Amino acid sequence: MSLPVSLPFADRLQFVETSAIRELFKLLGTPGIISFAGGFPDPALFDVEGIAESTAAVLANTPGPVLQYGATEGYNPLREQLSKFMGNKGVTVAPDGLIVTTGSQQALDLIGKTMINPGDKVIVEGPTFLATIQCFRLYGAQVISAPIDANGVDVDALEKLIDEHRPKLVYLIPTFGNPSGATLSLERRKRILDIAVRTRTLVVEDDPYGELYFDQPPPPSILALSADVPGSRDWLAHCGSMSKILSPGLRVGWMIAPPALLANATMCKQFSDAHTSNLTQATAAHYLTLGRLDGTLAVVRKVYAERARVMAESLQRELGGAITFNAPQGGMFFWAKLTEGRDASAFAKRAIEKLVAFVPGAPFFAHDADKSTLRLSFATVGVEKIEEGIARLGQAL
Amino acid sequence: MSLPVSLPFADRLQFVETSAIRELFKLLGTPGIISFAGGFPDPALFDVEGIAESTAAVLANTPGPVLQYGATEGYNPLREQLSKFMGNKGVTVAPDGLIVTTGSQQALDLIGKTMINPGDKVIVEGPTFLATIQCFRLYGAQVISAPIDANGVDVDALEKLIDEHRPKLVYLIPTFGNPSGATLSLERRKRILDIAVRTRTLVVEDDPYGELYFDQPPPPSILALSADVPGSRDWLAHCGSMSKILSPGLRVGWMIAPPALLANATMCKQFSDAHTSNLTQATAAHYLTLGRLDGTLAVVRKVYAERARVMAESLQRELGGAITFNAPQGGMFFWAKLTEGRDASAFAKRAIEKLVAFVPGAPFFAHDADKSTLRLSFATVGVEKIEEGIARLGQAL
Repeated sequence: MSLPVSLPFADRLQFVETSAIRELFKLLGTPGIISFAGGFPDPALFDVEGIAESTAAVLANTPGPVLQYGATEGYNPLREQLSKFMGNKGVTVAPDGLIVTTGSQQALDLIGKTMINPGDKVIVEGPTFLATIQCFRLYGAQVISAPIDANGVDVDALEKLIDEHRPKLVYLIPTFGNPSGATLSLERRKRILDIAVRTRTLVVEDDPYGELYFDQPPPPSILALSADVPGSRDWLAHCGSMSKILSPGLRVGWMIAPPALLANATMCKQFSDAHTSNLTQATAAHYLTLGRLDGTLAVVRKVYAERARVMAESLQRELGGAITFNAPQGGMFFWAKLTEGRDASAFAKRAIEKLVAFVPGAPFFAHDADKSTLRLSFATVGVEKIEEGIARLGQAL
Repeated sequence: MSLPVSLPFADRLQFVETSAIRELFKLLGTPGIISFAGGFPDPALFDVEGIAESTAAVLANTPGPVLQYGATEGYNPLREQLSKFMGNKGVTVAPDGLIVTTGSQQALDLIGKTMINPGDKVIVEGPTFLATIQCFRLYGAQVISAPIDANGVDVDALEKLIDEHRPKLVYLIPTFGNPSGATLSLERRKRILDIAVRTRTLVVEDDPYGELYFDQPPPPSILALSADVPGSRDWLAHCGSMSKILSPGLRVGWMIAPPALLANATMCKQFSDAHTSNLTQATAAHYLTLGRLDGTLAVVRKVYAERARVMAESLQRELGGAITFNAPQGGMFFWAKLTEGRDASAFAKRAIEKLVAFVPGAPFFAHDADKSTLRLSFATVGVEKIEEGIARLGQAL
C-alpha cells in the first residue's frame, strides 16, 4: 500500500531529476575539488557585522511588529526602502507599487500561479535560469526558447516567436544573465519595450545581478527605460532580490508589476506562505538605512571583477582554441562553448576526475540544448584556485 | 489596454474577496475598538530576549551557513531540534523525515501543489481554517465539509463522506481547532486512523495550537497514535508551526509525511521559494536548545487560560440564553452560535457600532454555512477588556 502521490505535471520535470546536475552535485563534496559549479555568492563577502547590527536593532526597537504576523504585501518600512533603492536606479515606484517576496524565486512562482494555465506558452532565453523553466512547467506551461548572443536575447527572433506563439509572458534576465553572463544592449532593451506594447505581451525582467558590475554600471533596467515608452509599464513585471547584494539566507526579494497582477499575486501569496518573515524583512530595511550597502558592494564588485579577469586569462591560456566564451561585464558566470562539437557532459566527467567541477550547459535550455556549452562560476573561488582549477580543466581536455 | 490577468480558478475565490471579513478588518483601526476578531497570538508574551539572544548567537557562531543559500528540505540543526521536539510529543521522526516550511501555510500550499488536480475532492471540517479552503481551491479542488461537534469531527459522517466522494485528502485541525476551539476525542482519533487505512485516504493533521492547552495536555496527536495502528503512518501528513509557540514573524513551520509525498513537496518547494530563511530557521533551532520554551509556554498557557475563563463567564453573564458555546480547553478561540436563528453578520455590524468586533462564522464553511455562528478570539485581549467587550456585545444584542 502506498500513497498515490502524483504531481499534475511531473512528467515535464523528469528532465531535472535525471539531469547531469544532480549527479554532479553529489560529487562536489570530494576532498580537494575546485568547484566552478555553484551559483552562490561568496559568503566571505557578506557584511555579517551590518546584518547582525540590523537584526539586533529591529528586535530591540520594534519587537512586536517584527515577531508578529504581518501584511502579505510586505513589511512597510522595507517597501519604503525598496522604493528608494529602485528610485536610485531610475525606477519610479511607490512603496505600494511593489510586494516583498520570499526570495525572487517566489516572485517567479507567484507569476506562474497567477498567470499560467496548463498549456499556456512562455518564452524564455535559451539558455536561462533552470529553476524558472521548472517553476513555469509545474503550472503546465509550454516553455519556448528564444536564441541569445553576447548582447542578450536576439530581439528579431524573439519578436517572431511572440507573433507566432502568442505567449502568456516573456521571461528575461537582461543583465549579467544566468547562465549566459550576457547583458542586453541598450538598443535591444528599447526594442523589447516596443515589442511588449505592440504585441500586448507581459515581459518579466529578472534582475538579481544588476548591482554586481565590474567597471561601469550596466544599461538602465528595462523597467527604468519604460518611462520613455508610453504604455510599456503596463506590460512589465520586474523581480529584484537581496540575495546577491546582501544575503540569500534572508530570503528577501520583491516584485514590481501592474496593479492587477500585483493584486492577484498578493492573493496567491496569502495562501502560499501568508507573508515573508518580518524579521528578515525588517533586517533588510534597517540595513538599507545604515549607508553600508555602497561600501559592501564596492568590495564585492572589485573582488568579482578580479576573479572574472583571472578566469578569462586562464581560460585563454589553458584551453585556447578548444573553447570560446564572452567575458562577462558583471555577475557571477562565464558561459562557454567547446569547439569542434565536443560534448560538455563528457568533459564534466573527465574534469571531476581531475578534481575540478563545472555545470554542463544543456539543462539550461528548455529545448534544443546545445550540448557543447558549459557554465563556470568564479564567484566563490579565489584567484589562485581559479588559475589552478582552469589548468586542471586544460589537463582534462 | 490592460494586462489580461486571470487566475485559473479565480471564480472559486470570489467568496473571500466579497466576504464580511475583509470589510470588517477595515474597521478594526477605529479608535477605542475592542477586537475579538484576530487570529494572532499576544505579542506581549513573545520571548523577545530569548529570540534576540538566539539570533545574535547564530550570526556570531555560524554566519556563513546562516546567510548563504541552504537546502530546500531545511536547515539541518533545526530539523534535528524538531525531531527531538516531536519525540517529546510521542512522535518518532528522524530529522530527514520532516521538511521545514515557510510557516505551516506553506505546508498546506505544498500539499495542494503536490496532490491536487483540478476537480479533485478534499474533505475538511465544517467550519475550518479559512486559508486552507482558499489554498486548496486555488489548485482547483472541490472542498467538501464534514460536520463537527464539541468533540471534533463527526467520524461516522466523515467515513460516509469519504466512501461517497473518494477525496484526495482529508484535512483536520484536531486540537483546539480554528475556528471551532474543539478537540477531537481520543476515541475518534483512533477511528480516524482506522478509516485512513481502510479507505487508503491521506489525512492531513494540522497542529498549530496543541501546545496552548490550559489545564492538561490534549490527547496525543493522530500522528503519535499512528504507532499503534499498523500501516496508518503511510496515510498521515502532519503540519507543525513555531508561530503560536515562539513567533509567527519567523515564518517557520514543518511537515512530516510519507517519503513520496515529502519528496514531491520538497521539489515543489524548490521552485516556490528555494528554501525557508536560514536566519529564522537557525534562530528557532538555537532557541530550542536554550531550555526557555517550557517557561515561555507555561506563561502563555496561564494567561490564555485566564482569558478564556473570563470570556466564558462574561458570555454566560452578558448574553445568557442568546448564545450557545463550548468553552475550549486550549488554543485561542471560542466558537459560538446565536440562538433563535439570529444572523451573526448583522450582529457583527451592530457590534462594531458599539466598538467591539468579532468574525461572523459563515466564511469558515466551505458550503452550507451556518449564518448564526461566530468566532471570538481572547488571545490578545486583557481580562478587563474582555469583560468590557463582551458587555458591549450584550448591549449590541
